Amino acid sequence: MNGLESVHIVEVGPRDGLQNEPRCLSVHQRVSLIQQLEATGLKEIECGSFVSNSKLPQMADTDKVMARLSLSQTCIYSALVPNQKAWSQAEGIEALQRIALFTSASELFCQHNIGCSLSESLKAFAVIIPLAKAKGLKIRVYLSCVWGCPYEGRVDINQSLALAATLLEMGCDQLSLADTIGIATQSQIKTVLTAFKSIDSEHIALHFHNSSGMAIANVMQCMDMGFVTFDSAIAGLGGCPFANALDSGNLATEDLVYLLHGLGIETGIDLKQLCSVGNSLCQLLHRSNASRLSLSLLNKSTLVI
Amino acid sequence: MNGLESVHIVEVGPRDGLQNEPRCLSVHQRVSLIQQLEATGLKEIECGSFVSNSKLPQMADTDKVMARLSLSQTCIYSALVPNQKAWSQAEGIEALQRIALFTSASELFCQHNIGCSLSESLKAFAVIIPLAKAKGLKIRVYLSCVWGCPYEGRVDINQSLALAATLLEMGCDQLSLADTIGIATQSQIKTVLTAFKSIDSEHIALHFHNSSGMAIANVMQCMDMGFVTFDSAIAGLGGCPFANALDSGNLATEDLVYLLHGLGIETGIDLKQLCSVGNSLCQLLHRSNASRLSLSLLNKSTLVI
Repeated sequence: MNGLESVHIVEVGPRDGLQNEPRCLSVHQRVSLIQQLEATGLKEIECGSFVSNSKLPQMADTDKVMARLSLSQTCIYSALVPNQKAWSQAEGIEALQRIALFTSASELFCQHNIGCSLSESLKAFAVIIPLAKAKGLKIRVYLSCVWGCPYEGRVDINQSLALAATLLEMGCDQLSLADTIGIATQSQIKTVLTAFKSIDSEHIALHFHNSSGMAIANVMQCMDMGFVTFDSAIAGLGGCPFANALDSGNLATEDLVYLLHGLGIETGIDLKQLCSVGNSLCQLLHRSNASRLSLSLLNKSTLVI
Repeated sequence: MNGLESVHIVEVGPRDGLQNEPRCLSVHQRVSLIQQLEATGLKEIECGSFVSNSKLPQMADTDKVMARLSLSQTCIYSALVPNQKAWSQAEGIEALQRIALFTSASELFCQHNIGCSLSESLKAFAVIIPLAKAKGLKIRVYLSCVWGCPYEGRVDINQSLALAATLLEMGCDQLSLADTIGIATQSQIKTVLTAFKSIDSEHIALHFHNSSGMAIANVMQCMDMGFVTFDSAIAGLGGCPFANALDSGNLATEDLVYLLHGLGIETGIDLKQLCSVGNSLCQLLHRSNASRLSLSLLNKSTLVI
């Protein structure tokens, strides 16, 4: 970790988090959440997903949510744009600076999760990416199941690497390598990221779930290898809707920031305020907070953050 | 972490864990737990505490528990021996290979927790240590609150270091530096352990609570600095009875072993069996398992450990 001066956090709570919650927040509540998150000092927030209201009611009216946001100079707003119809909704949104696409390193997960084959998902990207780039937008692609798939088990690293190279050639500027079912161990991370060394680390983000309590350890392993972009979700919300719901939880943003500050890495994020946003959100959602730090702070007054 | 070939785990569940549980286990159940833990491959187990039955009923009859154990060639059995009366019970126990004593880097925590001043606790040690060493026993001393105290806040590192040096001179062969209230961050760990570099790392064990979700990260930081002995408790039981009960749990042994195996460090421990012991114990105690790994395994079948 020595020598790392800054780490970039991609807050995925308003999308990856909320889409897995049984309770739906209103447009107003989601806008307010995003604004509160930005106010803590976060520099990138995934704000929603352009899907049909009936398919994923938690993400309904993402266009309305994003229309209420202004283009920010300090925070990148992104949203999931899963298909061309979604793009037609997204392209007019002034505040949108990055679109996120979703595919998988595993063929079977792609079929079960996205409802198309891997090659079909790439064909869809081949249409959307040039359109988004023509509008000056950045492109993130989620590559799920890089460390293992609930249907296929272990996933071939060379297959993931070839897919990653293809996506970068297609114009993607950030690949989020996801441990979708939270099984990555440190030595597997080392193996995969060593295989990915042909790709500049600035194009790689890491997306860990805390299923087995290793998300923080995984982040440390990645930082040790020079990777500096990590996804996390406020209050540890989220996970993968197609994996067992009890499996996950994303890494909690509060815990990630606490780790970074503990390592002496400045983030510019107000951690107390972040915890407060997470606690309020959990009250709104009638759920418990999955950030260990927040749970700890709720129970004592001596912890200095 | 590169280069570390082995890590020594001190399982403190049967003492530090059980003493904080509202339900008391019988002598038979505690003996069985210790034997099951040893059967997983653990090489050091703290088996109980020689205190009066009325003061800490969870630890009642520790003499009977230990009398049922045989001296092991593969596993060190230890027990907490807080005073001279305790020593009179402990000294005849054949299976006992190490006694553990308890003091604090913080004067106020010592007074509140042990009921005597720091210098009085050292005076008691000065009587017990020579007696135990004359019997060929090893001596562990818990130095609590090294990273902070619920009463004093930050604790002076030089004070901790001077105390540690005194204890080693007195014949202690292992100091367990405890983050009693679970507030240590990685940079604080670095600061303290750098200050402790005058002490051979073979004399140092680290005792982390997972209050803020950082126990695993803390272990990684310590390993990075060459420290290889860690305390943990099956199922993440325990914590500090005099700190807020909700603050802790110890680092779960299951999670620690999972980390080590994930790093490619062999422990000789059967992790599946260990998880099974933890789950059975939690059923006995009517409590939830605080090992993230076990929680994860309970909810899915795809995780390979």
